[in-house]
Amino acid sequence: MKISTIYEPIQKELLEVENQFKAIVESEHENFPNLYKMLSHVLVGGKVIRPTLTLLAGRFYNYNRDKLLPMATASELLHIATLVHDDAIDKSDVRRWRETVNKLWGEEKAILLGDYLFAKAGEFAAATENLRVVKVFAQTLETISQGELKQSFDAFKLEQTRENYIERIAKKTAALFAMSTETGAILSDAPEASIQILKDYGYNLGIAFQIVDDILDFTSSEEELGKPIGSDLAQGTLTLPAMLLLDKYPEDNPVKRLFQNGDKPENIKRAIELLRNSPLVQDCYALASDYCTRACRKLDKLPDDSKRQALMELAKYVIERKR
Amino acid sequence: MKISTIYEPIQKELLEVENQFKAIVESEHENFPNLYKMLSHVLVGGKVIRPTLTLLAGRFYNYNRDKLLPMATASELLHIATLVHDDAIDKSDVRRWRETVNKLWGEEKAILLGDYLFAKAGEFAAATENLRVVKVFAQTLETISQGELKQSFDAFKLEQTRENYIERIAKKTAALFAMSTETGAILSDAPEASIQILKDYGYNLGIAFQIVDDILDFTSSEEELGKPIGSDLAQGTLTLPAMLLLDKYPEDNPVKRLFQNGDKPENIKRAIELLRNSPLVQDCYALASDYCTRACRKLDKLPDDSKRQALMELAKYVIERKR
Repeated sequence: MKISTIYEPIQKELLEVENQFKAIVESEHENFPNLYKMLSHVLVGGKVIRPTLTLLAGRFYNYNRDKLLPMATASELLHIATLVHDDAIDKSDVRRWRETVNKLWGEEKAILLGDYLFAKAGEFAAATENLRVVKVFAQTLETISQGELKQSFDAFKLEQTRENYIERIAKKTAALFAMSTETGAILSDAPEASIQILKDYGYNLGIAFQIVDDILDFTSSEEELGKPIGSDLAQGTLTLPAMLLLDKYPEDNPVKRLFQNGDKPENIKRAIELLRNSPLVQDCYALASDYCTRACRKLDKLPDDSKRQALMELAKYVIERKR
Repeated sequence: MKISTIYEPIQKELLEVENQFKAIVESEHENFPNLYKMLSHVLVGGKVIRPTLTLLAGRFYNYNRDKLLPMATASELLHIATLVHDDAIDKSDVRRWRETVNKLWGEEKAILLGDYLFAKAGEFAAATENLRVVKVFAQTLETISQGELKQSFDAFKLEQTRENYIERIAKKTAALFAMSTETGAILSDAPEASIQILKDYGYNLGIAFQIVDDILDFTSSEEELGKPIGSDLAQGTLTLPAMLLLDKYPEDNPVKRLFQNGDKPENIKRAIELLRNSPLVQDCYALASDYCTRACRKLDKLPDDSKRQALMELAKYVIERKR
């Protein structure tokens, strides 16, 4: 995997996104020091995959930096806003190796900071001056909220199909990936067929990304991930690895015991061990790889081979990443 | 006050807003019954003042029903979304004579339902196909979140100036009133000077509305308001009536005792009694009336006296309302 193939062509733009973040933080410095502190805390770091998607998808036709930059910023702000709310909902203490907003300032302020960030994201989306993009943005926020609500209503339910799982991660994760590439395409005046190809790429990549996220929640470590492992199980979220465990060990199963009787630490520990020592991890990766293949299968219809290459490398990265 | 002067000219449109709400509820009926139930619960009733503002402000120039209707719907959705989050933050049990979303479904789902409603509001704002309106919408959500955050950071602080109070209610309430009239004016192609007059009207009316809200929290009853009285004090929110009480009784003061030592029920009860038996209520109403006067002072620059009349009556209603 050549990480330089992915980031090199958009390095300057990603720095600009970072500068936009600094400007948002700075804008509250004088008037509202408490908000300034919260923003300084959340608007740093991150894998910036979503802005990368917007910028890379925008390179195939009329590369319009002035419109792509605000949209790339909007993609990441929307992502961070959902993380802030997710952590408040899950009562998570740690994210990206640091304490969460809800841990530091309380759940109430986390809710309001998330709302503020949704608003900022909306302002940047509107700064593209493109109504279609604004509509995609609002629709995406709706889809994400639906997905998170579904996950919340499905918590600790054992009876869930593979289709339920894919539908849920499509809404909570893939929709935002699809938005990132679709808006990049729209803002560079791509023809409709290419917009669809790039949107589908984002969508399938998002599914793969979330499957890998769900695997890493079992196979990684807190040091690597920057947040505790086993947190999906702790929240009662039935992910693909847990589903495969239930299929393979229908009788004596720690996931089943956890969802039915509690005893979190012990059952989570045992579920993690069980998965790590089974070939099921590879089955999960195989499905994630399938989605990456799907993501890339129509890219050859786009012009310029070197620009396609970055998207192919990104798909590899999504599978190979350790965090 | 002639309530018919206010509502009669836009009755059909308000019914359309109600129909939009029903359509939103219905859209989740088949696919997501749990969300359907939550939406059925929150998307009913209400004073619909914000849609009324949008529709009335849109009557002075090119009345564009197809654009005003989605914006009127967006105004109310945005309002409801903020209420859902507010109740989750305040852990309120009752609103509009019914149990709150957080009481019925828990705080987590209330956060996500609020996000969903923000998204829906954004979609309706975008359906106006007017970028300036979309920008005002996003900016307003930012301002509201800032105002709510300020309120949260200022909770239980006794050292607050009258200016702090006005600044806070300007952000948390008046901004949305101003958005409602400003967007109505924009969507009817009003000249810039008239857009500003209508925006200022909404802003000043919003300040008056919130002052009256803050008075009613002392002087009304749970039966009338549909939610417990004294809830501002319970949350540690220092409103105008409480500020006047602190000024008048600097020594032995229940608000001071509440903010410094707690003992909520007793001190809230005594603060309410103290205010009710003082002329301070009239001082608060006098300030609210001042803002209504300011709201209306430039309306005579708008064409059509009969249409202006509805806005004047609405300003009267804001002062005279009992809930």
